[in-house]
Amino acid sequence: MKYDFQNEKLVSRVVAIGGGTGLSTMLRGLKNYFENITAIVTVADDGGGSGMLRRDLGVAPPGDVRNCILAMAEAEPVLKKLFDYRFPEGTLEGQSFGNLFLAAMTGISKNFSQAVQRVSDVLAVTGDVFPVTDAADMQLCAKLSNGKVICGESNIGHARADGSRIESVFLDPAEVMPTESVITAIERAELILLSSGSLYTSIIPNLLVKGVADAIYRAKAPAIYICNLMTQPGETVGYRASDHVRAIEQHAGHAIVDCVIANEGAVDEAILRRYHADGVDMVEVDHENFKDAFLVTGDYTDIRQGEKGSIVRHNTDKLARDIRRIAIDMMETKQLIRTERGKS
Amino acid sequence: MKYDFQNEKLVSRVVAIGGGTGLSTMLRGLKNYFENITAIVTVADDGGGSGMLRRDLGVAPPGDVRNCILAMAEAEPVLKKLFDYRFPEGTLEGQSFGNLFLAAMTGISKNFSQAVQRVSDVLAVTGDVFPVTDAADMQLCAKLSNGKVICGESNIGHARADGSRIESVFLDPAEVMPTESVITAIERAELILLSSGSLYTSIIPNLLVKGVADAIYRAKAPAIYICNLMTQPGETVGYRASDHVRAIEQHAGHAIVDCVIANEGAVDEAILRRYHADGVDMVEVDHENFKDAFLVTGDYTDIRQGEKGSIVRHNTDKLARDIRRIAIDMMETKQLIRTERGKS
Repeated sequence: MKYDFQNEKLVSRVVAIGGGTGLSTMLRGLKNYFENITAIVTVADDGGGSGMLRRDLGVAPPGDVRNCILAMAEAEPVLKKLFDYRFPEGTLEGQSFGNLFLAAMTGISKNFSQAVQRVSDVLAVTGDVFPVTDAADMQLCAKLSNGKVICGESNIGHARADGSRIESVFLDPAEVMPTESVITAIERAELILLSSGSLYTSIIPNLLVKGVADAIYRAKAPAIYICNLMTQPGETVGYRASDHVRAIEQHAGHAIVDCVIANEGAVDEAILRRYHADGVDMVEVDHENFKDAFLVTGDYTDIRQGEKGSIVRHNTDKLARDIRRIAIDMMETKQLIRTERGKS
Repeated sequence: MKYDFQNEKLVSRVVAIGGGTGLSTMLRGLKNYFENITAIVTVADDGGGSGMLRRDLGVAPPGDVRNCILAMAEAEPVLKKLFDYRFPEGTLEGQSFGNLFLAAMTGISKNFSQAVQRVSDVLAVTGDVFPVTDAADMQLCAKLSNGKVICGESNIGHARADGSRIESVFLDPAEVMPTESVITAIERAELILLSSGSLYTSIIPNLLVKGVADAIYRAKAPAIYICNLMTQPGETVGYRASDHVRAIEQHAGHAIVDCVIANEGAVDEAILRRYHADGVDMVEVDHENFKDAFLVTGDYTDIRQGEKGSIVRHNTDKLARDIRRIAIDMMETKQLIRTERGKS
């Protein structure tokens, strides 16, 4: 790991793991402060346009990967706009051209991960985007507090009428192999980031792929978890920051989180009221429960104007700068956060 | 016009006009012998995947343009293969990814021709591909010998039960404007090629767009028509070479053809028998009727193996070499074939 003073970027092997918009949003900030980023992306999605292609063509659902490619693409604006284009009407209504691009490329490639690599080349991605697995036929299932099991990513992440909670998630089939590059990337990483985003449907599914959680546990690099700002109906209602970490580590089978970045910035009451009406609350940072992992807190909120009013998102620039600061501290003290955890 | 001895290519402004596979096939040969090619391509198609996109999204039918872009693309093989990929199943079954590429690019562009230009850039097209018009809502209609009028390109080019022939074709609406660059390209051309292909549904539709036929007539460059090898059921049954030229000039409203390249190479009887069974015959070259235009003949046949046995196609390499020879002759004699026609 070294600091490039000219570009003010940290040249280090950063591996960012996640899915959904959480990961791609973080990557947009991260690429301004780090030179060498590898994104490891879930492919558990089965809703929307991704789900359509998955059912129709038996290809891996491309949506999460598409967003990460776009976030890291340096291609000219027209090509990026095209990749993000959604057909406005007809048979393809709402389908993203980028999804079709990935599906067609998969059709002429050895597997999904090769297609992702080729599309990344076309879009001049700086860094690497790896789907966590090439298995197109796996699905994500959840065991609920009411004893039921539900399958299909798009069925899991919603509030349920009986208020039942997720106890755990698992993959079906249970043994899903990672793509070749994923384990190597984690082993060689100098910094591992577990991205914010849907805890059970975007982050944890990566850890359920064979060997991934073990590789993070064994890796020399410390793992930083970027905790969500808000709770999510059907997934993390009532979860404090430590509950997020506990869920991750339970599914990983190891204490893999060395550092947590959590938000303590306040959000305007008027905005919060609308969130509350949807069953969403801010994630409480319960300092007292962070004995094992470092806790870094700050105001990471960014208020944007969405279609239905103000929405709260991560301030990706502050987040990326703070991740760089933590990494530089590690570099200067020659002390990996990791060592403080007493793990092998 | 000058000869580039290093590349053995003629550096001249060649404008090739047509559609369907006829034009794209010719372009594949032509690009090896000419440096600066502009393809002007019909957008009258309403069948297959192009027709679907036309109905669904109101975009110009991209199929013909797609084939021409591919023929002139210098992009790496993977990208060309992707552009030519057809989805094998599901909602998109049989749809070409290149068509979707053009349709999506149209969605983020000013018009179809700008989209074609941008896609051409992505695929590193050497030369220019211009759709003859940006009008996406025009259709091709035919007046038949039985007095009926049929509309829609895909309805026209088939054998009809009553054996009725096409008397003329027209556009609906009648006044369709050409894309900006088309007229300029014809005016600046040093050589104009009217490609082989479906006479009434690929070649003539270009001449019906406002100003195109006039521009060819007024242009300094001579126009060479590459006559079809075979007649086509529903379009040109019984047509000799001169009948093809007559149909072109009737629709153009002027004698625009200065030179005709026609095939006199024979085809194996066994192959011909299968063609005869489908109502297809070789085009007879009726020398006696070529008083006005130069007639260049030779063996331009190329026998390929298709799915259903041997098929007869133009030998695109010989064709392109002969077109170059004619162009060099013109250059050396400083005499445009054109002048012999006594046109203004």
